[in-house]
Amino acid sequence: MKNILLLGAGRSASSLIAYLLQHAPTENWHIRIGDIVVTHLHSLVDELPYAEALVFDVHNDTQRETEVKQADLVISLLPAVFHIEVAKECLKQEKHLITASYVTPAFLELHAEAQQKNLTILMESGLDPGIDHMSAMAAIQHIKAKGGKLTSFKSYCGGLVAPESDNNPWNYKFTWNPRNVVLAGQGTAKYIRNGEYKYIPYHQLFKRTELLYVEGYGHFEGYANRDSLSYREPYDLLDIPTMLRGTLRKPGYCAAWDVFVQLGLTDDSYTLEGSENMTYRLFFEAFLPYAANGETIEQRVANYLTIDAQGEIMQKLAWLDLFTEKPVGLAGATPAQVLEKILKEKWQLSPGDKDMIVMQHLFEYELAGEKYEFTSSLVVKGDDEVHTAMAKTVGLPVGILAKLLLQGKISNRGIVIPTKPELYAPVLEELKSYGVNFVEQETVLEKVTIK
Amino acid sequence: MKNILLLGAGRSASSLIAYLLQHAPTENWHIRIGDIVVTHLHSLVDELPYAEALVFDVHNDTQRETEVKQADLVISLLPAVFHIEVAKECLKQEKHLITASYVTPAFLELHAEAQQKNLTILMESGLDPGIDHMSAMAAIQHIKAKGGKLTSFKSYCGGLVAPESDNNPWNYKFTWNPRNVVLAGQGTAKYIRNGEYKYIPYHQLFKRTELLYVEGYGHFEGYANRDSLSYREPYDLLDIPTMLRGTLRKPGYCAAWDVFVQLGLTDDSYTLEGSENMTYRLFFEAFLPYAANGETIEQRVANYLTIDAQGEIMQKLAWLDLFTEKPVGLAGATPAQVLEKILKEKWQLSPGDKDMIVMQHLFEYELAGEKYEFTSSLVVKGDDEVHTAMAKTVGLPVGILAKLLLQGKISNRGIVIPTKPELYAPVLEELKSYGVNFVEQETVLEKVTIK
Repeated sequence: MKNILLLGAGRSASSLIAYLLQHAPTENWHIRIGDIVVTHLHSLVDELPYAEALVFDVHNDTQRETEVKQADLVISLLPAVFHIEVAKECLKQEKHLITASYVTPAFLELHAEAQQKNLTILMESGLDPGIDHMSAMAAIQHIKAKGGKLTSFKSYCGGLVAPESDNNPWNYKFTWNPRNVVLAGQGTAKYIRNGEYKYIPYHQLFKRTELLYVEGYGHFEGYANRDSLSYREPYDLLDIPTMLRGTLRKPGYCAAWDVFVQLGLTDDSYTLEGSENMTYRLFFEAFLPYAANGETIEQRVANYLTIDAQGEIMQKLAWLDLFTEKPVGLAGATPAQVLEKILKEKWQLSPGDKDMIVMQHLFEYELAGEKYEFTSSLVVKGDDEVHTAMAKTVGLPVGILAKLLLQGKISNRGIVIPTKPELYAPVLEELKSYGVNFVEQETVLEKVTIK
Repeated sequence: MKNILLLGAGRSASSLIAYLLQHAPTENWHIRIGDIVVTHLHSLVDELPYAEALVFDVHNDTQRETEVKQADLVISLLPAVFHIEVAKECLKQEKHLITASYVTPAFLELHAEAQQKNLTILMESGLDPGIDHMSAMAAIQHIKAKGGKLTSFKSYCGGLVAPESDNNPWNYKFTWNPRNVVLAGQGTAKYIRNGEYKYIPYHQLFKRTELLYVEGYGHFEGYANRDSLSYREPYDLLDIPTMLRGTLRKPGYCAAWDVFVQLGLTDDSYTLEGSENMTYRLFFEAFLPYAANGETIEQRVANYLTIDAQGEIMQKLAWLDLFTEKPVGLAGATPAQVLEKILKEKWQLSPGDKDMIVMQHLFEYELAGEKYEFTSSLVVKGDDEVHTAMAKTVGLPVGILAKLLLQGKISNRGIVIPTKPELYAPVLEELKSYGVNFVEQETVLEKVTIK
């Protein structure tokens, strides 16, 4: 019997839990699921001899040690900041670990020790990062295998709301951690385009969007995401002239979100004076120049940011009640925390709402004197507001990789991301049976001109 | 005899050194001046029995301990990051310390211990912060003493170039640490205006300027500087409806500097790929959207930032050679480091050039049913490119405070800034004899309307 310790049983864990419970009897697994609150798990596991729920506090050193000791494999879907402590415990006790979060410098420091102890710390194994790496590597492998020379690779992903549940002017609802949505894009986006390095500071990010088209779902807009340059090495694309990873939204979202960025509402680095007594309007007002004359707040916003006072952006802002005297009701809050609270009032999935994951890879390559475009697109919809597409696409690859690791089918050791065929090929294959299926399309663009 | 240890003998220390050497015989001081390089000091001190220069390395724990041990008072004009180590050594060995730098949270932690050991750690004792506090407090005291009720206080300061040496389109040259000029304003500016808290993110800072006038010197533009709110307490102005501290430049500077901010050229948080092979033009290009068509770089900058392709801003940029193929010649550099190098080529003081310090406090107060405006302005010019106004106004208050402290005339203990009369009154008085003299002007604005 193999013992799996799953830490984190929040919103995005539902599909992973279902997958683990489904395979436990045949794989001979025993599963312990820990989180701060586990009341919602009792109906799932209490009747099962091979699973149990426990109240788990990541800050409790003794409990962390005891629980990891009993496990053969640890999976962490805790908030990303807590992973490093779990990883260190796993190293100490020589256990494998899987997470869906980004590799950070702190994790890279564990690489040599993990390799030396013959352990796999498998990261970036959810959706984005995760399925994006796997599907991209499969396509890159396919193109390289037939002798194609890659000249451009752009990859976009977004967690959105399905068209049938899309009933607000932002065409957006929260389908994962709202705080991450508010802080998304902070820092500098880095990519390369036709051999030129490009750097986009945060305050320009939501202005520099690109339009994409997904068959059957229409247009989306993409903005550059984090450091695309750092993925040239793991993708084995060191010499590619164009490489960009980005995030998808419905058209119009970015221009409206940019209002928050321009004003400074997404800043999480300081607390506002008197936020406990602020109204939505006063919060917004604190980021506008002082009003000496009698203009409306809408007119002043329009003038300050040179947007249309009657246009779509302003309608989106007004729909959030930003210009009303609703109380904020948060003491000692940062601007980002206040904005998150305001958005949570409006962007929650309603009962029955379906979310939607959209991913698109766009490749250009040259082969035998011709230039090709190869597109690989994925759309996954949720079943309802609990069994979301986000939970499926984050949880299923983690579950499948857990199965492969416990079956001894993964030989990569150290800090690993799923860019190798032994990892991505079986995961992508099994994902198809869960409806996670990429649609591929190839077009000849033009004859390559010999310069 | 009293021993003074002066650490830091760079550009801004010349007037302080002259002041200390001038007063050493009468005050019975012995002065040791330490820095990494002290060759320029030998001609000044080698003939004097009461002064000496020594090579001092702040990272050398033994030397720091030995030198502080011999001193009665330590003065640090080292870069601000090094002060805290010096301060801890002073506390350990129970010595007073004076610096011209901002109080940081790390210093506040030393307050109780310094008080308990009867020590003074006197900070913010140069120009800005320093003379600004002293002259503002003198004016506030004057207004309060006659029963005036302060309703508004704005305070601006700038280190500029004197009109007779002003021969470039930016109307600016470096008169202090260029790196600090490049990074100036990063973070969020905070102030209060007519009772409304206002927050300006960095990317809006150089757009939100105010025009000021200084008799005899014309107009200047001011932008908000750091956290003005935090000075309400030390200034004893907790209930003032308007309070703003700002930085001065000549009109037109901020709009052009904003191009650097908007593009991301002042970012110091990451290094550029291949900066060693970059030209000025390629550096600039890395922050512009990819050019698909044949437009000039000037036209693309103009379109991207909605500025005039033939206007004054573009002329300022072109004058810096930003659009040329000059090599950058810096490996592993951040954008801010490259920008600093480019600006240093152009913004150096030439031999004979005079710098100029401009400071202006603007108060509004109510007294006996009338509303007054009270303005206090200071202009100080340098003698030449070495004996700068910056060195005078940073160094002289530090020197005078050192004298007062050693004479036992300062009773404030702990972390102290010069907002108390025992500190500012004698300093402002003595500064007059060095030509550092505020011009005051009072106007009745209007009858106060009873609402």
